[in-house]
Amino acid sequence: MTYTAPTSDLLLALEVCAGLGDLAEQPRFAAATPDTVAAVVEGIGAFAAGEWAPLAQAGDRVGARVQDGVVTLPDGYAEAYRTFVEQGWNSIAGPEDHGGQGLPWSLSVAVLETLGAANLGFTLLPVLTAGAIDALEQHASPAQKALYLPRLISGEWSGTMNLTEPQAGSDVGALRTTATPIGEGPHAGKYRIRGTKIYISWGEHDLAANIVHLVLARLPGAPEGSRGISLFIVPKYLPDAQGEPGVRNDLKAVSIEHKLGLHASPTCVMSFGDEDACIGELVGAPNEGLRAMFTMMNAARINVGGQGVQVAEAAWQRARWFARERVQSPRAGSAVKTPVAIVEHPDVRRMLLRMRALTEGARALLYYTAGQVDRGGLGDEAAKQRADVLVPLIKAWGTEAGIEVASLGIQVHGGTGYVEDTGAAQHYRDARILPIYEGTNGIQAADLVTRKLGLGGGEVLLGLLDDVRRDSADAPALASLATDCAAAALWLRDEASLDDRLAGSVSFLTMCAVAVAGWQLLRQARAVAGTDHVLAASKPVVARFFLDHLVPAAAGLAPSVRAGAATLYQLGALDLTA
Amino acid sequence: MTYTAPTSDLLLALEVCAGLGDLAEQPRFAAATPDTVAAVVEGIGAFAAGEWAPLAQAGDRVGARVQDGVVTLPDGYAEAYRTFVEQGWNSIAGPEDHGGQGLPWSLSVAVLETLGAANLGFTLLPVLTAGAIDALEQHASPAQKALYLPRLISGEWSGTMNLTEPQAGSDVGALRTTATPIGEGPHAGKYRIRGTKIYISWGEHDLAANIVHLVLARLPGAPEGSRGISLFIVPKYLPDAQGEPGVRNDLKAVSIEHKLGLHASPTCVMSFGDEDACIGELVGAPNEGLRAMFTMMNAARINVGGQGVQVAEAAWQRARWFARERVQSPRAGSAVKTPVAIVEHPDVRRMLLRMRALTEGARALLYYTAGQVDRGGLGDEAAKQRADVLVPLIKAWGTEAGIEVASLGIQVHGGTGYVEDTGAAQHYRDARILPIYEGTNGIQAADLVTRKLGLGGGEVLLGLLDDVRRDSADAPALASLATDCAAAALWLRDEASLDDRLAGSVSFLTMCAVAVAGWQLLRQARAVAGTDHVLAASKPVVARFFLDHLVPAAAGLAPSVRAGAATLYQLGALDLTA
Repeated sequence: MTYTAPTSDLLLALEVCAGLGDLAEQPRFAAATPDTVAAVVEGIGAFAAGEWAPLAQAGDRVGARVQDGVVTLPDGYAEAYRTFVEQGWNSIAGPEDHGGQGLPWSLSVAVLETLGAANLGFTLLPVLTAGAIDALEQHASPAQKALYLPRLISGEWSGTMNLTEPQAGSDVGALRTTATPIGEGPHAGKYRIRGTKIYISWGEHDLAANIVHLVLARLPGAPEGSRGISLFIVPKYLPDAQGEPGVRNDLKAVSIEHKLGLHASPTCVMSFGDEDACIGELVGAPNEGLRAMFTMMNAARINVGGQGVQVAEAAWQRARWFARERVQSPRAGSAVKTPVAIVEHPDVRRMLLRMRALTEGARALLYYTAGQVDRGGLGDEAAKQRADVLVPLIKAWGTEAGIEVASLGIQVHGGTGYVEDTGAAQHYRDARILPIYEGTNGIQAADLVTRKLGLGGGEVLLGLLDDVRRDSADAPALASLATDCAAAALWLRDEASLDDRLAGSVSFLTMCAVAVAGWQLLRQARAVAGTDHVLAASKPVVARFFLDHLVPAAAGLAPSVRAGAATLYQLGALDLTA
Repeated sequence: MTYTAPTSDLLLALEVCAGLGDLAEQPRFAAATPDTVAAVVEGIGAFAAGEWAPLAQAGDRVGARVQDGVVTLPDGYAEAYRTFVEQGWNSIAGPEDHGGQGLPWSLSVAVLETLGAANLGFTLLPVLTAGAIDALEQHASPAQKALYLPRLISGEWSGTMNLTEPQAGSDVGALRTTATPIGEGPHAGKYRIRGTKIYISWGEHDLAANIVHLVLARLPGAPEGSRGISLFIVPKYLPDAQGEPGVRNDLKAVSIEHKLGLHASPTCVMSFGDEDACIGELVGAPNEGLRAMFTMMNAARINVGGQGVQVAEAAWQRARWFARERVQSPRAGSAVKTPVAIVEHPDVRRMLLRMRALTEGARALLYYTAGQVDRGGLGDEAAKQRADVLVPLIKAWGTEAGIEVASLGIQVHGGTGYVEDTGAAQHYRDARILPIYEGTNGIQAADLVTRKLGLGGGEVLLGLLDDVRRDSADAPALASLATDCAAAALWLRDEASLDDRLAGSVSFLTMCAVAVAGWQLLRQARAVAGTDHVLAASKPVVARFFLDHLVPAAAGLAPSVRAGAATLYQLGALDLTA
């Protein structure tokens, strides 16, 4: 089975859901002509299939290895990454004044989606670099930008995010890494960094000439908790006067985790300042580090939702391939007693269509969200707020969709799917981190029912749901779900206690995400129905399946939203035992 | 974290759902006094925790190994198995005239449940032996029974099921292994077996003195398909005149699969008759092999549903332990700003209670089913038919529950859960085979909406649903779900085409399973509420959560049942691509 990028579906989602055509009418995105967009999407599809996908299995089986602080990837990774940088794929949405191509961010999401479906673990490398670029672009000094951005945007250097410590996971404010000002000497004005960070993806590797670690740490006397955290650039090699990688900094990868999946992505325990000689420079104002991280969080969370789409696309392609190849049993009830390809059996079709509906529904939600981000970047405040509401939906529901599709992918394979050689199991293992990192899905749901529900007094979310309802006259189940969501939103806002809101948050998030994803799929179906578009026949069927099966199931969660927290607290922590 | 058998919950399920008290009033089960039952359940709990659980991690990490056809297990497995046999745990429900203890089958399900939660892969060994005992008890000749049953029942010898071949998976009728009658010589009257079987669990190992392979094969001139299959005993060592393991038979494990999970269970490719000297003996009549397999299938499928409970129990215990240990973030909205154990956060509680509701709901369904089997064995025809209807419910929904609980278990752990050392990931990997083997869950759903729905003209299933409805006056959502199930059943029976029935089968199965499991949980809650039972406080809360969250979600599947197959077939197999 060979990975093929879903170019037509990506272009349709970019056009209908992200509204790339409208965006290209803005001067800032004038370069995003239909031809350029098609060239990028087709080009990255060819690159991903040719260079990235063939390395996926070795990435899983051999994986990243560490020895004496040196992390190596399997054969071929370094060359593939070099080609990726040379062909300019890392710089799609980067700002033009630092060497980027200045194209819409939605298009960079499409580039990452295509790469990630081909090789999820490998693609975390550019995803993390994109996060570092975001943070520096918005908070670094002009000198820092001039030094670091061009090489991060090209991809010659890579980036990392160093937040988590053993005692500080979801509660970043509990971190203890310290930064001590240096008063004199060659590093005067900089900081001595000391601490241990865990779960640092691509914290060490041999693919880029330098690694720019963004590290959260505490200045002396900083307030406790999240208000006392500052952001630092801590490069693996300190840039010399020419900006080239110079002296090795005092930091290293102590070990890498033995994970369930994503073996191609080294997850490092990083130690900074073992020799008390780890040099970092402050980004932005002291104690404003968490705010700086928050500004890049939207993009990161959307891209993790995108990883749900990526693993789903990969699992779906593999299952479809298998279902057409595998011959087993005659069709039930048929007069013909010859065994058929299993794709002909009703329940296998159901699984495949469900996989496709989830994948394309999540993709539609992804690009709808990305398009709102692009509009927000152009100064459209309503779009920016709508993006804020959509972020937890795509992060949580997109990643849940990834897991479900990967699991169905194994099921379609039958016993073969449980054997690692098939490749189906890798998707199931890879997918399982997605609901956890970049804010667990529980945290996404909490964000939705607290901060995001409160935006504009509730009108941002209610306005979105009203758009779904008003645009679903031809899909009564969807209109009804949107109405249910709005009623649940009002209950959560006006009647529920904080605990009740949190207790119902995950069910509420699922309802809203399915409503918006269903709406965007329906819009795609309308756009192609009756045309000669390559998806004119299939998209309406996928949308129909989504409306028939996923939408009513989501509506069934409404009582669960309102069940309240009382039951959760009837048992003490100890009684949860018995 | 240490595994502790859920003794109180098991005894409650045996009492309320299996109705073991009533069974013990029958002469055949007079030995099943409350004291004996408690002694068995407590004894196996201690054994499983002490001997089986400590081997689980090595079983996963080191796993079974094969070299030159010899399969070895990690250190400790052989000793633990020997103790298991010596203590008589294998013989609980075996017939007394061949050395069994003649206790109710429900109690043997409890023994396997307890063992499997401690070490799922290891427990497949006695599960398979139980299947072989079943088949021989019902179909073998008196001489065969006398030779094989005592040692299988004690566990000195183990059993296997050899059905699958590369081209014959779900379609067993496509198998090609041959059995040729031997006319003369020392093996006259026996058969020469030749063929390759795949996915043979515990097909080879060094724990038992002999392995009794039950092999499906074709006699010369047998009809094509499933009507031409016969069942053979093919022992690893041919018993000598004293019934001791004698000459090595011509069969071997060619390789073992590199699987996603269940690494302690060697999944073998078996080759029979490479030297044309593999000797087998026919069990039952020629060409009746598949029917023989069917008679043991109910027990096997219920036990696989039980494996869903097992993996769920293990995952839930681990997550609960972690949630009490891990301290992170103050409680939202609390005036106290000290970090708390994560078990105090609402969404973590929600996940834990959901895990518990799924686990105990599946357990309740499991023992309700097992109790009906025991009643059926006593000649109660209505119970036998009800068991037939319940089998696909517990197999499919029980195993789905296992996967969901294992996945939630990782989520409760956060990033730590994605690291293999924690153990949470093993449950997620182990669980994924359960919806596949012993008839995929799609096949279970097909069985429900075709054969099982047709039993008694539909009255068997409708009678069960009516019992649920009539006994749920205090749980309106449950009564309503049972009514929805009955309406869907009538539509499936009277109006739907075969394709429509199959298209809606999985959703229908989920609805019915949740209804019956919810009913049985409710019955447990009623039995303990207001008493001094150790579960008097917690069981009603678990049942409440099940009713508030799982029951309405299942009701939301009703439109999906009736959506029909048309959408599934609007796209050709090729169009499923684009």
